[in-house]
Amino acid sequence: MIKLQERDLKHIWHPCGQMKDLAANPPLLIKSARGALITQEDGRQVIDAISSWWCKSLGHGHPLITQALQAQLAQFEHVMFGNTTYTAIIELSEKLAQLTPSLCKASFASDGSCAVEIALKMSLHARQITGETQRTKFMALENSYHGDTGLAMAVSDLGIYRLPYQAVLPNVSFLKNIPYVANKLDPLWHDCSSMWPALEQQLNQQAANLTAIIVEPLVQGAGGMLIYSKDFLVRLRKWTTQHNIHLIADEIMTGFYRTGLKLACDHAMIEPDFLCLGKGLTNGVLPLSVTLTSNAIYDLFYDDFEKGKTFFHSHTHSGNALATAAALACFNAFDVENIEQKVQTLEFTLIELLQQIATETGYLTNIRHLGGIVAADLVNAFDISRLGYLVGQEAIKRGALIRPIGNSLYWAPPLNIEYETLLQLRDITCDAIKTRCCVS
Amino acid sequence: MIKLQERDLKHIWHPCGQMKDLAANPPLLIKSARGALITQEDGRQVIDAISSWWCKSLGHGHPLITQALQAQLAQFEHVMFGNTTYTAIIELSEKLAQLTPSLCKASFASDGSCAVEIALKMSLHARQITGETQRTKFMALENSYHGDTGLAMAVSDLGIYRLPYQAVLPNVSFLKNIPYVANKLDPLWHDCSSMWPALEQQLNQQAANLTAIIVEPLVQGAGGMLIYSKDFLVRLRKWTTQHNIHLIADEIMTGFYRTGLKLACDHAMIEPDFLCLGKGLTNGVLPLSVTLTSNAIYDLFYDDFEKGKTFFHSHTHSGNALATAAALACFNAFDVENIEQKVQTLEFTLIELLQQIATETGYLTNIRHLGGIVAADLVNAFDISRLGYLVGQEAIKRGALIRPIGNSLYWAPPLNIEYETLLQLRDITCDAIKTRCCVS
Repeated sequence: MIKLQERDLKHIWHPCGQMKDLAANPPLLIKSARGALITQEDGRQVIDAISSWWCKSLGHGHPLITQALQAQLAQFEHVMFGNTTYTAIIELSEKLAQLTPSLCKASFASDGSCAVEIALKMSLHARQITGETQRTKFMALENSYHGDTGLAMAVSDLGIYRLPYQAVLPNVSFLKNIPYVANKLDPLWHDCSSMWPALEQQLNQQAANLTAIIVEPLVQGAGGMLIYSKDFLVRLRKWTTQHNIHLIADEIMTGFYRTGLKLACDHAMIEPDFLCLGKGLTNGVLPLSVTLTSNAIYDLFYDDFEKGKTFFHSHTHSGNALATAAALACFNAFDVENIEQKVQTLEFTLIELLQQIATETGYLTNIRHLGGIVAADLVNAFDISRLGYLVGQEAIKRGALIRPIGNSLYWAPPLNIEYETLLQLRDITCDAIKTRCCVS
Repeated sequence: MIKLQERDLKHIWHPCGQMKDLAANPPLLIKSARGALITQEDGRQVIDAISSWWCKSLGHGHPLITQALQAQLAQFEHVMFGNTTYTAIIELSEKLAQLTPSLCKASFASDGSCAVEIALKMSLHARQITGETQRTKFMALENSYHGDTGLAMAVSDLGIYRLPYQAVLPNVSFLKNIPYVANKLDPLWHDCSSMWPALEQQLNQQAANLTAIIVEPLVQGAGGMLIYSKDFLVRLRKWTTQHNIHLIADEIMTGFYRTGLKLACDHAMIEPDFLCLGKGLTNGVLPLSVTLTSNAIYDLFYDDFEKGKTFFHSHTHSGNALATAAALACFNAFDVENIEQKVQTLEFTLIELLQQIATETGYLTNIRHLGGIVAADLVNAFDISRLGYLVGQEAIKRGALIRPIGNSLYWAPPLNIEYETLLQLRDITCDAIKTRCCVS
């Protein structure tokens, strides 16, 4: 067993972590996974408490998705999507078009970052076509994260992801002091008018040169599962419309019921100009991302080829048929499993269980939750270095795969996770915190 | 049938083309695909003459890959790869490490663009760590294409892909007048010393601030299947080493026998500092890309977490198990099918057949070829607008999916394509050219 892990460390540069940490705490050796449970080669199970980076919303090995993949595999896997099509992707695009009133044109990629790049590029390119050539700037929110490719990284505020590459990134402004909330009962959730004037002032300063503002609607994932006011999103949509600035909603993490509704934007009853989806789109089974936009945008690019308005962005696997089959099956699985209903129950269970830990340990503060996400900051009473990391490692040893972001601990499990598994997750998390947050 | 295509056009924004063209020439409606043949819903077949954008090197529905996918599907599809691993990806990374003498560390993504971004970012980040903070510039070759995300686009010379986004891209210099060749018998292939001084002068001007030079080794795909001197690649490697500048080889198109050898770099017997692979890596079955680098680079980032040297770049589906299973099966399939041998035969067949067309029609010039790629420019004797596009559409109607790049026509079929299918491809291409290149 150790031998396999040594072989891993010899040849694999894992994503999003310091490899020296993996030498100290070797990667878990996975054999299989079903539902919310991952089984290691030695038979030990761990709960996938964060849905494998927030993508396995229906858990591992969902039978409806497996069946769809097997059926597609018997037909074809992938055909260049430049000038071909097929029934499954037509049906998927129709489902995607039904998510919002008017975002009816779908551009497909694989990595989530690429969906964000497509939105940013379409916005900027549209300005070239309309002659608004001064509109070349992007704006994003403080604590934002939108991906790790050039432009996606440029609109990400988190320093660890962008600072080493600053020399090759365009200048982007970040909106400060946004109205964070604890949950939907927070007065700011419904009304952030007290904070709006200061926000509007920042916005107005940039208005003339902005082409688009990009947001993770309501929940900022990599920023530490920070939740902000629904009313702020309403106001931002109104302001961007008034100032002819595109609003890009990066729902790669929040989409498909993670926040309780099909889209996070639905809480605010707003529609962006561009909507980016990924992760839960295929239940994290295969890489597939999509950027949706309106006919208003699409029509700007639609012209005789010679006019030079073509959006040439492409990826080899745009429209991959296996990924598409998985995504189409997900739409069915969300209905069959009645996920919209389940996430309502889950929302209450998650916050109840985390509050039990807070009460029992006294080491949780700033508790926040929305839909299938609950988070809190660890109280670092003894100034322990890398406390979040240590708590995470302790939980893994005890059977739950959590990955605190800094000292922010969170759960974002499969939306159909069993109640009994959540009780285990509570106990494991509680023990991990008790073990690591004090000095004995 | 028409109805499905209308539904497609209502909701799908296809990659890499003007949608108005697709309204005029509706997308082919695909039902299934096997080997080099794609079957449409109405039963008509088309030859996949360009391997679905150069990725299906073993053809569609390869049984070894299908079996591997079915087996992996029974275990698990994808588990967050941050701190987990599994046997198949360890075995794949070992196979990848064997491709070159010292590029033994693999970072995985899905889209090819992301593999390029990883290489560019690692190079730049390494300079921050070593304190060479003046090295912030990238250089690329004229006619280069490396992808459509921010940094990948910045190092792409082709205007249609980058000009609308110029305002948000870093400045990149492009090396001009590189020694293009017709084939391996071209004297320049072995010796470009006559052109080197002028090239070296351009390089020397940039040397102080460069962190990396990125190239598509030997064949520039989207640039129009342009082939350049092996000796130039040898000299460029030598020059970059002497000047402490990283060489990034983007073998996303050329890798895995497309140019006749396992890697295009093998023709020049050189090793880059970063190697990007994709497309043929999974035989175009699933999106998977990888960036390989050396321990020398890896070790720069390897330190205590607190030192702030972590490479945080990550994608949700990094290490996707289904894509990995497909890639591992490909290594086996390449051996079982004896592709290295087959491509030698294919190389001669392709050029022979294209030369037959040239002789018969008189409408082909600048014929060039390497391994499983053969290309030529259409002679536009009657100044026909969008001649290449028209020839492509004509070929599709007659049963071959080709997609000329501008007026450059090329074949890059599955490397195991049947000889009889190539004869059909010759006849179809020949008829398409005869029909479109003259005015009747």
